[in-house]
Amino acid sequence: MKMSIVVCGRSLEDFLNEIERFHGFRAPGLVLGGFMVDWAQELIGPNVEADAIVETAYCLPDAVQIFTPCTIGNGWLKVLDWDKFAVTLYDRKQLRGYRVWFDLEKARSVPDLYDWYMRRVAKKDLPLEVLLDAILEAGRYVLSSGAIRVTGHFERKKKGNTQICPECGEAYPATQGATCFACQGKGYYERR
Amino acid sequence: MKMSIVVCGRSLEDFLNEIERFHGFRAPGLVLGGFMVDWAQELIGPNVEADAIVETAYCLPDAVQIFTPCTIGNGWLKVLDWDKFAVTLYDRKQLRGYRVWFDLEKARSVPDLYDWYMRRVAKKDLPLEVLLDAILEAGRYVLSSGAIRVTGHFERKKKGNTQICPECGEAYPATQGATCFACQGKGYYERR
Repeated sequence: MKMSIVVCGRSLEDFLNEIERFHGFRAPGLVLGGFMVDWAQELIGPNVEADAIVETAYCLPDAVQIFTPCTIGNGWLKVLDWDKFAVTLYDRKQLRGYRVWFDLEKARSVPDLYDWYMRRVAKKDLPLEVLLDAILEAGRYVLSSGAIRVTGHFERKKKGNTQICPECGEAYPATQGATCFACQGKGYYERR
Repeated sequence: MKMSIVVCGRSLEDFLNEIERFHGFRAPGLVLGGFMVDWAQELIGPNVEADAIVETAYCLPDAVQIFTPCTIGNGWLKVLDWDKFAVTLYDRKQLRGYRVWFDLEKARSVPDLYDWYMRRVAKKDLPLEVLLDAILEAGRYVLSSGAIRVTGHFERKKKGNTQICPECGEAYPATQGATCFACQGKGYYERR
């Protein structure tokens, strides 16, 4: 399929190449997510300093990180692990913005896309290229958007006091207690 | 300061430029984090498919996302919001790897770095360029590393059943209950 479209300010080829470079492959969820970011960017306009919230940890965080200035590490992107395929861009001062979500009802008319999202089809029975073509052809058609005001999860976390853990000698936030989480047995590793 | 070093397989200039492009500016924590990733990559070697865990949401997740194949959206990077400046790269099959952390005791001999990390100095009293030079000069000197076995937080989350929320009509995981989190009042937005 050939199309001359611009997504997130890029040619389709650049759009797909950047996804592959950052994410490792042209993940369907990330291509779909790119269209969602593209629409949210258009709705909020070019002159707004926007923060982002995504409602799933799958794929969508990378669409925001590739195509907007918001990243996990700079604090402008928040990831809610809700497994809802939705993204919000909002003015970080006014707290007004737009939410774009994958609209399953609209996707019913694109069976490959619907079946993929609902995991009704095995990967081997739906080749990646077929699914990607369906997503590229559908674009915004399977999305919906709404104007919203952000009422929570917009706070920048303040760092508290840092102190030295008496057991491991590492710096940790005082709020964790007399020793750090790892020395409290909540760690994810053992020395070898 | 001029140095001819290679960090994360890049010239210092490319290293700093990629940080700026992704993160918005040359954040000190991200430059320090780049040295941490660089060391962890060297320890684990080039032929290992490594997953990553970072122990803070500040800056360090971006170092991993820029300089390794691991991202939030592809599931190879996990972010623990512990405010500890440490990163682990580990073989995703063997669960063996290396943890690298900012060693505050070692950093005592680099007062600008120590004061910055402990937030003992106002930003206006420690220009970014001075701090960056201190970090570039220190490099691994203010870090420590250890061989570890990962004992938790390595599971890939499995998606559960997806169903339609009877209130908003959006897809959500059945485990959330009869309606989705947003319709249960746990959302972060209101329509406007």
